[in-house]
Amino acid sequence: MPSLVLIRHGQSAWNLENRFTGWWDAALTDKGRAEAAAAGKLLAEKGFDFDLVFTSVQSRAILTANLALEAMDRLWLPMVKDWRLNERHYGGLTGLNKAETAAKHGEEQVLLWRRSFDVPPPPMAADSEFSMTRDRRYTGVHIPASESLKDTIARVLPYFQAAIVPELEAGKRICIVAHGNSLRALVKHLSGISDADILHEEIPTGQPLVYELADDLRAVRRDYLRDMT
Amino acid sequence: MPSLVLIRHGQSAWNLENRFTGWWDAALTDKGRAEAAAAGKLLAEKGFDFDLVFTSVQSRAILTANLALEAMDRLWLPMVKDWRLNERHYGGLTGLNKAETAAKHGEEQVLLWRRSFDVPPPPMAADSEFSMTRDRRYTGVHIPASESLKDTIARVLPYFQAAIVPELEAGKRICIVAHGNSLRALVKHLSGISDADILHEEIPTGQPLVYELADDLRAVRRDYLRDMT
Repeated sequence: MPSLVLIRHGQSAWNLENRFTGWWDAALTDKGRAEAAAAGKLLAEKGFDFDLVFTSVQSRAILTANLALEAMDRLWLPMVKDWRLNERHYGGLTGLNKAETAAKHGEEQVLLWRRSFDVPPPPMAADSEFSMTRDRRYTGVHIPASESLKDTIARVLPYFQAAIVPELEAGKRICIVAHGNSLRALVKHLSGISDADILHEEIPTGQPLVYELADDLRAVRRDYLRDMT
Repeated sequence: MPSLVLIRHGQSAWNLENRFTGWWDAALTDKGRAEAAAAGKLLAEKGFDFDLVFTSVQSRAILTANLALEAMDRLWLPMVKDWRLNERHYGGLTGLNKAETAAKHGEEQVLLWRRSFDVPPPPMAADSEFSMTRDRRYTGVHIPASESLKDTIARVLPYFQAAIVPELEAGKRICIVAHGNSLRALVKHLSGISDADILHEEIPTGQPLVYELADDLRAVRRDYLRDMT
């Protein structure tokens, strides 16, 4: 039975400050580092093991994967890093905290963005201090100016199908360490959650989410590891 | 001009205790972790950057690579882990410190092993507590019972030629994070050092060794980064 574990990166500095982070490379806090190591320790204690790890090209996810693997004594596992597992790109909201966003765009507009599946935030300004267009890791990548959750799903799922599904089908035990919204894309797909309901699916930081999958890779069972007996 | 940086892992617990480590997965000490981060910091300060990182499947090398990349803000770089970059396998000496080795095998025999290019230490016992034969990372690998430096070179160089040379030829900037003897294999090859002289080549832990290479990949220049102006 194919198995898949999803882990959202540990707490970042911008999670803590309640700022929209998106593609900005916010660092893990000490708490976030501890969450990552605790995730690895719990996985090892519960007898989980992997053959292959996927993560984004964002430091907070890679560092979470590294710390979890270190705690599992599995640093040697192959790890694939791909931008298509990045967080949703928050466009012009990047860097703003909730209060600043409400002050700048109005409560009503913010509620619309937060509650809508397919309305992207305003585009990031070309000269934004948070722009990633000159970051070498994105050479050759068409960086979005902003993404709705629907847009995020539209780049996560084809990558999942092309790069991860064949490994699951080959019987490999996979761990994906990624972000709140790139993981929502996977949960929506695997668990068949509606466009409306996926917005309410909050994935906590550093908590391994365990999928048991049928041979057609639909979810048979989905549980946070902390809740499994 | 192709460029290549070699880094020996930071100090391990068994370096500190003067024990033959080989394929045993000794942990980094706090000093070793600090050496790794300092290596990354120095590389960044001196303007070095990479496209691809190679390391062994041993934790002390991978952790050194991870910590150096974190200090360089380059966690996102692709990293290839391969057992052929592992440390020399010390066979039956694994786990012994220098005093124990002399007591067990005699000073003269120890000197012979230490000064010879092609005499392997005694084989590791099948039931050794330091055996890696049941470690999943070596599934499908024919683990040596013991290696001379010559034996180590005989698995490092074909890997270098097959996996790393094409990347250098494609213009990629490469960092290899590995071990005292797997790096000796590369230094011997790149710098054309004799069988006798390579035994005296001591590569310090956590010090980036910078190669400038000619188009035929022979060394034009070899310097520790700390000494470069």
